[in-house]
Amino acid sequence: MLNEKALAAMRWDKDGLMPAIVQDVGTDKVLMMAYMNAQSLQRTLEMGEAVFWSRSRGELWHKGATSGNTQLVLDIRIDCDADTLLLIVEPAGPACHTNEETCFFRSLDDFAAAPERL
Amino acid sequence: MLNEKALAAMRWDKDGLMPAIVQDVGTDKVLMMAYMNAQSLQRTLEMGEAVFWSRSRGELWHKGATSGNTQLVLDIRIDCDADTLLLIVEPAGPACHTNEETCFFRSLDDFAAAPERL
Repeated sequence: MLNEKALAAMRWDKDGLMPAIVQDVGTDKVLMMAYMNAQSLQRTLEMGEAVFWSRSRGELWHKGATSGNTQLVLDIRIDCDADTLLLIVEPAGPACHTNEETCFFRSLDDFAAAPERL
Repeated sequence: MLNEKALAAMRWDKDGLMPAIVQDVGTDKVLMMAYMNAQSLQRTLEMGEAVFWSRSRGELWHKGATSGNTQLVLDIRIDCDADTLLLIVEPAGPACHTNEETCFFRSLDDFAAAPERL
């Protein structure tokens, strides 16, 4: 668990959220980016698996709870100005809901040729 | 340059911004995260170097313009729901204003022990 002083020193946005980048410890690929609030960060520290805050559903989101594609959290880094997190994980399966290994599977060129949100 | 249809299909936030994660092509390290608007993305594509939008200064921010620590952009990826970018870069120097190679040089544990925004 993180102490109150550290939580207060972190620069949460006006909604109490912070971006969390997820990187694969084995491949070094950037898998996804999601948002955390203090509660989801504490749950992540307790469980040892990535727990985000779902902005669309307005609730805690234990990644992989239904799909099985959990992310074992091996390290958490924070940037210089304490407004972004970097999670180093061992994923149990694909990070993306499309079943791609990473959510960043498209180049911007490919997207521009067929601009769709998947 | 990106076509208007692609720009419109990208999911910019209510301020017209999108997070852009920067990863080193050589070391695979995540170097930093910053924000782009459509204008900074177009400038990045024109110049071939990372240009962000500075939220604090409210202006285009050509990374390294003063420090010399530019970032040559080799690839740009976009995630499944088109709301986050990933830039694969060759950095000319440290990404962080502290002169660290990456802005994520602290573990959350180290931060918790001495919680400072640098």
